Amino acid sequence: MFTGLSAFPLTPITASGVDEQGFIKILARLTAAHVDSMGILGSTGSYAYLTREQRKRIATLAKQHAGDIPMMVCVGAVSTDAILHLADDAQAAGANALLLPAVSYQSLRDEEVFSLFETVTRYVSVPVCIYDNPGTTHFTFTDELHGRLSSLEGVRSVKIPGVPDSPAAATERVEALRQHLRPGVTIGISGDAYAGLGLNAGCEAWYSVCGGLFPETAKQITEAAAVQDHERVTALSARLEPLWAQFRKHGGSIRVIAAAAGVLGLTDTDCLPRPLRPLSASDIADIAHVIATLELK
Amino acid sequence: MFTGLSAFPLTPITASGVDEQGFIKILARLTAAHVDSMGILGSTGSYAYLTREQRKRIATLAKQHAGDIPMMVCVGAVSTDAILHLADDAQAAGANALLLPAVSYQSLRDEEVFSLFETVTRYVSVPVCIYDNPGTTHFTFTDELHGRLSSLEGVRSVKIPGVPDSPAAATERVEALRQHLRPGVTIGISGDAYAGLGLNAGCEAWYSVCGGLFPETAKQITEAAAVQDHERVTALSARLEPLWAQFRKHGGSIRVIAAAAGVLGLTDTDCLPRPLRPLSASDIADIAHVIATLELK
Repeated sequence: MFTGLSAFPLTPITASGVDEQGFIKILARLTAAHVDSMGILGSTGSYAYLTREQRKRIATLAKQHAGDIPMMVCVGAVSTDAILHLADDAQAAGANALLLPAVSYQSLRDEEVFSLFETVTRYVSVPVCIYDNPGTTHFTFTDELHGRLSSLEGVRSVKIPGVPDSPAAATERVEALRQHLRPGVTIGISGDAYAGLGLNAGCEAWYSVCGGLFPETAKQITEAAAVQDHERVTALSARLEPLWAQFRKHGGSIRVIAAAAGVLGLTDTDCLPRPLRPLSASDIADIAHVIATLELK
Repeated sequence: MFTGLSAFPLTPITASGVDEQGFIKILARLTAAHVDSMGILGSTGSYAYLTREQRKRIATLAKQHAGDIPMMVCVGAVSTDAILHLADDAQAAGANALLLPAVSYQSLRDEEVFSLFETVTRYVSVPVCIYDNPGTTHFTFTDELHGRLSSLEGVRSVKIPGVPDSPAAATERVEALRQHLRPGVTIGISGDAYAGLGLNAGCEAWYSVCGGLFPETAKQITEAAAVQDHERVTALSARLEPLWAQFRKHGGSIRVIAAAAGVLGLTDTDCLPRPLRPLSASDIADIAHVIATLELK
């Protein structure tokens, strides 16, 4: 399940709490598009803003509506105890894999992160994907640490935050990381603007926010990558530049995707957990324009 | 309560959970030293690693053992809902004030942080201290935002992370911030190595990790500051340089203070919440040497 298009849906959270009907509507788009897997409660799924009970409920709902699509659930938290409880809940809900970031409050040392992954992989019975997201967790993995972690039996994939901005440098980056990884551990690209570069550079998966709302659009890219059509991957990704520009403008994807889910009528345009606030009406209008112009679907 | 020595104790967390007896022993040192206030569940108090129930229990325990010393409780969390629940619990436990950081997962905008403080100060009935700690929360307050926040009726103090490394620059920094603050809102220094500089520069409080374990030592400094004996403040702080060097060496104070609490026999030397791990035996021996040489108490 650690190849192809892994779609990371938003968890819409409105004034009355988690919008379960909105969440189910978003999931329906993913099953209709036959994405290769779902990444529930990722960063765009607002795991960090939800209680243990809410996260358990969302994982359960997702499994009920995922059909036969494998489900990965993020179990990120600051404390190891919390992570183990979340792992219990995710497995009980039917998670096929867990996504584990190194969320820091006090800065973490490599040895602490290694011990965390060792503890979790020994504790759980499903495979684990390393979630490398320094922008939100403020922990930076070295390739050496990724290599050590990939030697743990349960670790099966690494979700990387991006690649350098040229095809040659991206390929060099992915190959350098792969040198450190146990064979069979896949590399998945995230940071949607880097998806084309990453897939062409040899990443086997796209852990995709775009694919969590616009799975048909995202799947065109992973399908072109699957047949090694590098030019088409590049062209399809370049076509989405106005969407990537929105992500850059708003400091990441979550506020844009939340607005987009509202624009599509799946939930409210104000569907972010406080203290996060929705974009302005004018920004949302710009996003609606991008969705219409690019025919995102 | 936002002046003088505000002592921030460690919450010792051993293999069997929160070490309540150890915590009570640490509190006893603070009451014996008659610190001016206590800051419970600060960063060194590991608030970020504990469940709501654990935090409620610790605040309750602290109040039971605080005597007549005012108690501030940190209610930091990523989500606003969680913060409001923690504020309920802290107030029910008898908190005299709340300490509120801007903990980020997705990066926060100034307007979102302002709304958060507006929501919390309207909701609670005790005063609030702004907790400015970019090293752990990854949100940087501007002086303008501190100024806007200080206009909220409940805001009564700002805990700043440090000052520039010279007396003149430190004074300039504190005066610049004060220009923005509503009169009567105090400024408290943290980052213990900066305490002497900050107090001499006009900070009315020291929000002190050192004072959470070595209150007699820390109180000498705030008492010298209270009588404007700048030279003594500088000399007393300079004398503690070997302790500040330990903080620098270990990337902050928490691992050093945890080791020190173990050295003093108040709890285990391994008393940090996982994934954090204790220092090595050799590092702990160095800390024991610093405690003995400086006669920290």
